[in-house]
Amino acid sequence: MKEKEFISIIKNTLKSEYIGDDCAYLKDLGIVVTQDSLVEDVHFLRKKITPFQLGYKSVMVNISDIAASGAEPKYLTVSLSLPQDIDNKFIEEFYEGCKKACSESIKIVGGDITGGDKIFISVCAIGSTAGRKISSRKNAKVGHKIIVSGLHGSSGAGLKLLLEEKNKPEKFIKAHLEPKAQVEFGKNIAITVKQDYAMMDTSDGLMDALSIIANESGVLLDIDFDKIPHDKDLEQFENWQNLVLFGGEDYQIVAAVAQDCPFGAVIGEVKEGLGVNLKINGTVEHFTKEDVENKIFNHWENNK
Amino acid sequence: MKEKEFISIIKNTLKSEYIGDDCAYLKDLGIVVTQDSLVEDVHFLRKKITPFQLGYKSVMVNISDIAASGAEPKYLTVSLSLPQDIDNKFIEEFYEGCKKACSESIKIVGGDITGGDKIFISVCAIGSTAGRKISSRKNAKVGHKIIVSGLHGSSGAGLKLLLEEKNKPEKFIKAHLEPKAQVEFGKNIAITVKQDYAMMDTSDGLMDALSIIANESGVLLDIDFDKIPHDKDLEQFENWQNLVLFGGEDYQIVAAVAQDCPFGAVIGEVKEGLGVNLKINGTVEHFTKEDVENKIFNHWENNK
Repeated sequence: MKEKEFISIIKNTLKSEYIGDDCAYLKDLGIVVTQDSLVEDVHFLRKKITPFQLGYKSVMVNISDIAASGAEPKYLTVSLSLPQDIDNKFIEEFYEGCKKACSESIKIVGGDITGGDKIFISVCAIGSTAGRKISSRKNAKVGHKIIVSGLHGSSGAGLKLLLEEKNKPEKFIKAHLEPKAQVEFGKNIAITVKQDYAMMDTSDGLMDALSIIANESGVLLDIDFDKIPHDKDLEQFENWQNLVLFGGEDYQIVAAVAQDCPFGAVIGEVKEGLGVNLKINGTVEHFTKEDVENKIFNHWENNK
Repeated sequence: MKEKEFISIIKNTLKSEYIGDDCAYLKDLGIVVTQDSLVEDVHFLRKKITPFQLGYKSVMVNISDIAASGAEPKYLTVSLSLPQDIDNKFIEEFYEGCKKACSESIKIVGGDITGGDKIFISVCAIGSTAGRKISSRKNAKVGHKIIVSGLHGSSGAGLKLLLEEKNKPEKFIKAHLEPKAQVEFGKNIAITVKQDYAMMDTSDGLMDALSIIANESGVLLDIDFDKIPHDKDLEQFENWQNLVLFGGEDYQIVAAVAQDCPFGAVIGEVKEGLGVNLKINGTVEHFTKEDVENKIFNHWENNK
């Protein structure tokens, strides 16, 4: 848990009110901003991902954070550090991937490129808040319903297949390598909700997102596993329920919104208490913040 | 020159009108944005810089780019990739350095932290364009005067001393390790100029900046070396004129502005032609774009 320890040191040092959500909401400028990095051998293996997929993913990760804030993704900057053996073709395909992830209305407007021992990618994304109500993890209220934008577990299954050198079912591999940020879903919520709401993407896993919303808002999320949308073919995988809950990188959106919100699949409700109650396999399991942190895939410790 | 080759591929792939200046000017949002990275063993050696200085410099580099665009530096995000042997003290001191570089009105509002083999820092900075006229490298016009905000060569001298394991004169080492972005200078220009102007910082060296402005604007810059402000003690260094011209990392500002601009030290004038004419040691030397590119310190090739 070194990463979380470091973040708490950063918070104490900077005493910034902004650090907490994936995006910082800069009200005076009418924008949100987020930055995320992908490091070779930590977040990806060069042999397991094409330059196109790497560019695509680097950009999509950040667009997803903007979408989950409720803002409209607009601009990105891309910073690249590359080893000497990278050739022109890599660069070209990488940026083709970036472009593909961007859609018409999102533009890459800058960044830099430097040398390095390994591939390091850091993308900064900016979204416009005009006409949008912006979310916060702290906004879940008792009585809210919990909704998700789509399927969970597919990306985790894809990663599993890739690590086992398998290439089928292709849909899972595609879900892992070319996830799609839920831009329309985020927009629908942000332009229709009237009251405060909590929303984030499930890049680090559904349970991670649920636990963060619960603990940042000081509430209990009552979740019914059977209501979480997942691909039926996932059930062939060993520990498939873990993939749904902890798999991560599906880049779906989870939100705690007022009951009258017409979007998403309802998977539970906000109650008084703290943490997550998960109804699964006929029992109810309680997850504290620590329980969830100990089960999730941690980039820091699993890869070094 | 692999870096420049890559940038041209990126430009061709993205077909973005934004890539060119250090900052992208996003008119619809009233902001400029820039991103710059510092990589261990490419831009700095861990043994030669303290965590405080590293944090300070990472932030200052980006504030300097915003200042040189004419915008008001407002917000930053900081992305860090860190090896396992980095301890809490490093993080604390690094962010103390970041904070020190920020001043009251500039805030760090986000970023992320991940594992990695080497230290990799990527900072994104956002500036507000309200009440400012924003610069572009393409704006130098015949008849403009060329001005600089302050001393050149001190930082390069400091780097030289550090590499030779010397620690005096301290002023040069400080100039290298704790450069100061010319925020006030940038502001003065941007709130007073009436006509288009060209401005950039001299982070990659004064000649590099002059050459870029000349070539992007399609003009000749006529420069008098004797008018370039430099510390007199610099003259003790071997090839000290090279330090002034190519040393880099002074983070001063150079601009091509109308004759009535009351700020800065005048070092030359914009004429018809292309490139840079440098009056030095009693002769006039002409520098094409390629001449300058071949003389400047190139992070890519010198360090790998």
